[in-house]
Amino acid sequence: MTICLDMMGGDFAPREAVKGIQLYLSETDTPAVLLLTGDEAQINPLLQEYQIPAAAVKVVHAPQIIGMHEHPTKALKEKQQSSIAIGFHLLASGKSEAFISAGNTGAMLVGAMYSIKAIEGVQRPTISTIIPKDNGKTGLLLDVGLNADCKPEHLNQFAQLGSLYARYILNIDNPRVALINIGEEEGKGNILAQAAYPLLKENNEINFSGNVEGRDILLDKADVMVCEGFTGNVILKMAESIYEITHQKQIHHEYFDRFNFENYGGTPVLGVAKPVIIGHGISHAKAFSNMIRLAQKMIEAGLMEKMKASFEGK
Amino acid sequence: MTICLDMMGGDFAPREAVKGIQLYLSETDTPAVLLLTGDEAQINPLLQEYQIPAAAVKVVHAPQIIGMHEHPTKALKEKQQSSIAIGFHLLASGKSEAFISAGNTGAMLVGAMYSIKAIEGVQRPTISTIIPKDNGKTGLLLDVGLNADCKPEHLNQFAQLGSLYARYILNIDNPRVALINIGEEEGKGNILAQAAYPLLKENNEINFSGNVEGRDILLDKADVMVCEGFTGNVILKMAESIYEITHQKQIHHEYFDRFNFENYGGTPVLGVAKPVIIGHGISHAKAFSNMIRLAQKMIEAGLMEKMKASFEGK
Repeated sequence: MTICLDMMGGDFAPREAVKGIQLYLSETDTPAVLLLTGDEAQINPLLQEYQIPAAAVKVVHAPQIIGMHEHPTKALKEKQQSSIAIGFHLLASGKSEAFISAGNTGAMLVGAMYSIKAIEGVQRPTISTIIPKDNGKTGLLLDVGLNADCKPEHLNQFAQLGSLYARYILNIDNPRVALINIGEEEGKGNILAQAAYPLLKENNEINFSGNVEGRDILLDKADVMVCEGFTGNVILKMAESIYEITHQKQIHHEYFDRFNFENYGGTPVLGVAKPVIIGHGISHAKAFSNMIRLAQKMIEAGLMEKMKASFEGK
Repeated sequence: MTICLDMMGGDFAPREAVKGIQLYLSETDTPAVLLLTGDEAQINPLLQEYQIPAAAVKVVHAPQIIGMHEHPTKALKEKQQSSIAIGFHLLASGKSEAFISAGNTGAMLVGAMYSIKAIEGVQRPTISTIIPKDNGKTGLLLDVGLNADCKPEHLNQFAQLGSLYARYILNIDNPRVALINIGEEEGKGNILAQAAYPLLKENNEINFSGNVEGRDILLDKADVMVCEGFTGNVILKMAESIYEITHQKQIHHEYFDRFNFENYGGTPVLGVAKPVIIGHGISHAKAFSNMIRLAQKMIEAGLMEKMKASFEGK
């Protein structure tokens, strides 16, 4: 197995990425071979410093970097020798089976959409987040910002993609899928939610359990929760801020610790043909290690094949 | 000053309403005269039990009750002798200057819209919620569910109504108004947010400070935050659930105590011509007392007149 990691992405790259590799290798019985894209003059000394075995990694030199605030499409087009562009090239050409970066999110999304394309039948790839439930369980929320405006069928597809992710990656049997709404009964909600409900109800690929409201998001009412990316992004960032506020106010509790999104590594782009994982800009070693493990799990579980089969003939 | 209170609304009516009146009278130097609509056979013994002075209140008998789950429009039409219908009649005819109920929310909204009408120029009345900020300050979020689908101009009007409420009721000088969005810069967001931004920017009646993201909602980035009622309702109910979860997990902290929405009484319907306040179904004495105080403050501050002036000629 070969997984490609962008070493130049994120606020603490490449050092934290190297520390993440060290952590990953120490925790994994059968690690993937890691292709590392980035500036070899910066990466090689760090690989030595952290005693990364030469057989475990292979540096692919990338002389350019796409900055965190560059325009995604423009940067990807103009910086063909950047660590992100080369990473997608390795992925698209089959030299790597997954690609991970904590760099420019927009460039990662554009790269995912245009270099490896969507799974056939998927209209809109999506990004999700893990939601810690009050009873210790874990839910999935999507879309969290990739698709700010959605049609009902998009929500229906997010439900299907999220359901497969919950089943094969989060290990939730027959995950309950819910529509985020502003009322419990069918017929409630805005125009989009009203139109999405019957599609979800009729979708045989998912276990639809109805609407959930804002008050249910942190409770164990559903495993997969779908909404358009505007509301989802607001929920995600509000949840992240709860962690930051409790941290800053020194309110310590196991429940709030689970809102530290670094625990969960990165966000996979669901609906594209190969595993692409986007990390937070502030990713540290643990997040990098978790992202590599996630990519490995996505490959081992055959998630892409499961998704392709689920959308076949749609 | 005369304020009307529905005694039959809410899960703990009429007893908690009477206890709320007792609390209000004990805490207020110059209390309003309270018109109490509801079943006098239930109300009178409680007024005696709680030693409410006869001069402070006047019971207006209402033999019918609109249940919490009745269809709002149908119930209001068919139950003309209900405590809510009579309350709106008193308000519309000028016998009361404000109306408060913790009963059927839908019936209260329908009553507000059709019995006393919107302020001229206001396209969509709105409901808001208080948001406790991490630094001890207080913000206002609107719409929180009355308008699930909005046009850009609706958000612009919510901003104007919320700004006046923040200034005259929350006592915030020159309140900063922000658009809830999924990016900080102008041009970000879904179609609605993109179109609302320039309207807010050009609105001379408000102090527009730009976009805020989900992570800023609980921080002191803006005093008034506007969005459509779908996202707003999800935010409100998620915030309410944070209080419930911390309460249940016995995580005690002054910050989370401020998420107990009973502290804030009820939700005024903003944009209608007279003060209408809707309480939570689970309102206890403190909430009832706070709702009466809020109605009194809205009247004393001349909020309706300020809103009318702000929308004149629009």
